Amino acid sequence: MVKVVAIGGSLRSDSYTHQALQQAVDRLNALGAEVEVLDLRTLNLPFCDGGDNYSDYPDVARMQKAVTEADALLLASPEYHGSVSGVIKNALDLMGFEEMAGKVAGLISVLGGQSNSNALNDLRLIMRWVNAWVIPEQIAVAQAWQAFSPDGKLLDEKLSERFDRFAQSLVENTRKIRGVN
Amino acid sequence: MVKVVAIGGSLRSDSYTHQALQQAVDRLNALGAEVEVLDLRTLNLPFCDGGDNYSDYPDVARMQKAVTEADALLLASPEYHGSVSGVIKNALDLMGFEEMAGKVAGLISVLGGQSNSNALNDLRLIMRWVNAWVIPEQIAVAQAWQAFSPDGKLLDEKLSERFDRFAQSLVENTRKIRGVN
Amino acid sequence: MVKVVAIGGSLRSDSYTHQALQQAVDRLNALGAEVEVLDLRTLNLPFCDGGDNYSDYPDVARMQKAVTEADALLLASPEYHGSVSGVIKNALDLMGFEEMAGKVAGLISVLGGQSNSNALNDLRLIMRWVNAWVIPEQIAVAQAWQAFSPDGKLLDEKLSERFDRFAQSLVENTRKIRGVN
Amino acid sequence: MVKVVAIGGSLRSDSYTHQALQQAVDRLNALGAEVEVLDLRTLNLPFCDGGDNYSDYPDVARMQKAVTEADALLLASPEYHGSVSGVIKNALDLMGFEEMAGKVAGLISVLGGQSNSNALNDLRLIMRWVNAWVIPEQIAVAQAWQAFSPDGKLLDEKLSERFDRFAQSLVENTRKIRGVN
Repeated sequence: MVKVVAIGGSLRSDSYTHQALQQAVDRLNALGAEVEVLDLRTLNLPFCDGGDNYSDYPDVARMQKAVTEADALLLASPEYHGSVSGVIKNALDLMGFEEMAGKVAGLISVLGGQSNSNALNDLRLIMRWVNAWVIPEQIAVAQAWQAFSPDGKLLDEKLSERFDRFAQSLVENTRKIRGVN
Repeated sequence: MVKVVAIGGSLRSDSYTHQALQQAVDRLNALGAEVEVLDLRTLNLPFCDGGDNYSDYPDVARMQKAVTEADALLLASPEYHGSVSGVIKNALDLMGFEEMAGKVAGLISVLGGQSNSNALNDLRLIMRWVNAWVIPEQIAVAQAWQAFSPDGKLLDEKLSERFDRFAQSLVENTRKIRGVN
Repeated sequence: MVKVVAIGGSLRSDSYTHQALQQAVDRLNALGAEVEVLDLRTLNLPFCDGGDNYSDYPDVARMQKAVTEADALLLASPEYHGSVSGVIKNALDLMGFEEMAGKVAGLISVLGGQSNSNALNDLRLIMRWVNAWVIPEQIAVAQAWQAFSPDGKLLDEKLSERFDRFAQSLVENTRKIRGVN
Repeated sequence: MVKVVAIGGSLRSDSYTHQALQQAVDRLNALGAEVEVLDLRTLNLPFCDGGDNYSDYPDVARMQKAVTEADALLLASPEYHGSVSGVIKNALDLMGFEEMAGKVAGLISVLGGQSNSNALNDLRLIMRWVNAWVIPEQIAVAQAWQAFSPDGKLLDEKLSERFDRFAQSLVENTRKIRGVN
């Protein structure tokens, strides 16, 4: 079974990033993947100091363990200042090759304004750096404030189908690359 | 007088990033600039939640005020995973156009291994996003563990001259672009 | 007087890139700049072979001379495959520091689909590489097939104002950085 | 059998890019892949004009057919001005989704000076744009003028091993992703 860890890079209480993440999580579940969501709003993570002693923050080890045991990563970040949020970059800084190399990643960005690939580009190169695979399919949710219905559904049918193909690719290609069922 | 705020994106106690930053700060001072170093190791900053209420963290307002009043920014980041540190990106996420638009920025990255422009590229595009100017001169300090003498001096003469030209450009061009003396 | 060389990176006969370029050229002229348009559709340039002997192609020397004598560059590229056109990159490859260092550049990209910063980002880093200044203001013309009236005017008033500010910044800041009138 | 098309983005007669490409080609052959090298120095390709009528240049159709029939692409580019060569970008501009989507790509860059990822980063995002997979392993050959022996062998054993792993990954993962033997 494909094991996925999903991480959302926003700390907003009513975060569109987490709504977008959930859209992908639902589809991954429907395709038979086992998804664990690591919510950075509830994890107690420190700022990364470049070292490896985070024993005061057991959530670091918890996150590292979950990612180590996963086949795939689902990452969603708000686009802040034309890049990923510092919040998600810091979470990734707390891990490295040991946890992420060889894993398969799918990327989502969420924007207040019009669409752009800046955060997706940065995230793709970051994940490459730790030797992860990144699937070609990626999603930018533009003008996120009008993308979802009050109950969290995608209003744009084409975007919804894009999530379908994205989730499909992440599961299928994780199976192929990782050799899991 | 050119006012510069200098921010180092590493939380290490014996940070090479801060040694590199100091090299530039010394040169800026010698050129008559007034430099305020904001040390993220001593500031108490929260993770950015995408909002604007950080009244529990007075250091946010302190940082915002210092940058607002500055003509130029000196930013130094360790390169983590082929990008800037989450720490410095988070600090920048806590500010925006109001503080940074129209300012002139100089960029330094510090690497444990061989040279690369990844963090510098990302930082350049991030600063552009908030409508800052970024000087063409930039510095990547490679294999930082062997770049400095015990008393914090640069061992490589050519790199030292690169810092000279970098500081010179930041001061001269801030004067031109900002119209300050 | 500010001297600008304008280069459009499309070879289409009815190129939207050249229409976008012309929008900026008109504004630069109105602001008192002297603009020379180098039309890659009429120049006879070879593919760059990494050498410096292009005596069979006098247009190479002509382009190099024009850029050498300019204070500023206006570059417009179609976004092909999420980057600049090979056509404009090849033209830039035929020049280097000698022609472009210290110059001030303004960047425009033209897209068939929705907006994106990919070509603009690449062009910014390319121009930085040859030590040029790139103004923070930049323009992506999305869905270019519906951006212009039959006589080549911009249909979107906000986009037109964006061109105004872009041209204004290119002229004003070239004056400041280059010390020309 | 894994079919690979290899393209080198330099037109130099004594190109280090082609020497680096050959290093990978030899290893791919040894691993049982069938490799066709498309040498842009001998192909007669036009500058891309954004259209699709290149009947005057039969090599365009020849290149398109070869890539369409391939499972994988091996791309090597010199790094010019902190990006890919215009030559290779133009060749890629002459193709699109039809030829490249779903293919698996491996990337090499060749630099006269010190190592950098700029061309590799750009090439990775370009290939993503046409929905190709790019393997995480990538190679930058720095100071290429001293990287090879007179008979074209790599002088640096570690770099040679990097080519081994690169070729191994390209073949193995093309098999997995494309379902070929």
